[in-house]
Amino acid sequence: MENKGKLYGIGVGPGDMELLTLKAARILKEVDVICAPHAGAEKESIALSIIQPLLDEREKKAMVVQPLFPMKEDVNHLKKHWMEAAFIISDYLNHGKDVAFITLGDPSIFSTFTYVQKNLDGKYDIEVIPGITSFTACAAAIGEPLVEKDETLTIVPKIDKSIKDIIDKSDNFVFMKTSRNSRKVENKILKDPREKTVYSVENCTMEDEKIVEGFSNEKPYLTTTIVKFKN
Amino acid sequence: MENKGKLYGIGVGPGDMELLTLKAARILKEVDVICAPHAGAEKESIALSIIQPLLDEREKKAMVVQPLFPMKEDVNHLKKHWMEAAFIISDYLNHGKDVAFITLGDPSIFSTFTYVQKNLDGKYDIEVIPGITSFTACAAAIGEPLVEKDETLTIVPKIDKSIKDIIDKSDNFVFMKTSRNSRKVENKILKDPREKTVYSVENCTMEDEKIVEGFSNEKPYLTTTIVKFKN
Repeated sequence: MENKGKLYGIGVGPGDMELLTLKAARILKEVDVICAPHAGAEKESIALSIIQPLLDEREKKAMVVQPLFPMKEDVNHLKKHWMEAAFIISDYLNHGKDVAFITLGDPSIFSTFTYVQKNLDGKYDIEVIPGITSFTACAAAIGEPLVEKDETLTIVPKIDKSIKDIIDKSDNFVFMKTSRNSRKVENKILKDPREKTVYSVENCTMEDEKIVEGFSNEKPYLTTTIVKFKN
Repeated sequence: MENKGKLYGIGVGPGDMELLTLKAARILKEVDVICAPHAGAEKESIALSIIQPLLDEREKKAMVVQPLFPMKEDVNHLKKHWMEAAFIISDYLNHGKDVAFITLGDPSIFSTFTYVQKNLDGKYDIEVIPGITSFTACAAAIGEPLVEKDETLTIVPKIDKSIKDIIDKSDNFVFMKTSRNSRKVENKILKDPREKTVYSVENCTMEDEKIVEGFSNEKPYLTTTIVKFKN
């Protein structure tokens, strides 16, 4: 891997730039290339918008590349885009440039970085810099602990039929991006006979953050719901 | 709450000082009082040792108080210590001093801050600053994603008999502080018929970090195990 650049997978946290780690901020100020996946031509990368003020402060500007990562579920279609992104990144690394792939929240939790990481693992020096996850930021915003004592916590990316198997097995749940849920699955959870508290946080730590009791009606893209059952 | 100080619950991350957030670092440089719980007279506070270099840089030194939070399981005995800590903190807040209660990892996840937060909630202005959790730092250290696609992730603080109810319901598990486990419960997990990968990280992001396959034999206090079942 001599003379090759290093790849960083950097979690930029949930939205507030001050929730970047010191390490992430240091690397983002030094690195040659910033790779910020975006979901479509008309959509700007949220991760990039979080770190933009920091990039603006740099004297030597970074090269910013924005490969397309569409939010579709057709895996074959997606694979083509992941391969393309990996190819673009490889090209910079082969030319000795260090690349920071930025991702909302943490790079190990439901992250687009995972696909790039799997494609390039073993071929380059890769370092993952953890970030603040949306769910601990949401708990902080609500002002309630997420999990305590001997309780368990389960993180669910998408509520579907399988929720019935696990809903009575864990004490606390985080439902990520609940904008994708139907009211029907939400009602199933609300009908669980245990005493519970349910809070949703929309656009956590961003300027338009909103905390609501129960599931969210408006459901912006970045909505997280925390369900805590009482034992 | 006029004229009263503000209480911050600050997550200092898993060990590496560079994993502090910019926000945590800013507050820790400004705040009047640092409250660092410690487990016993002979044990230094790990959270305090993480931020010590940052405190040493301060021109105006912070007052550091270290209430005792013994690691015992007798709740009545513990309550006495939590009340004492809350009393000490209240006294500073009533005198208009801002206090930062520091906690390893994140303040919303199995944190001693929870007890202080519950005692003082509603009486003072409280802000929680999320931190990097040990488990995302461990996944970053291993270089493997923690959870992806439609998988679920369950965080378990203590493996006991109830593990049999949930072990086949979730795709990925984090076992926190596995130093408290018996070999017997670990073997139960290892015998699960699904294909899996098991990694433990001892003292993650610290100088003596060690990654081992399977559960840890040495089991220092800060050992986290990640079990990923393959679907």
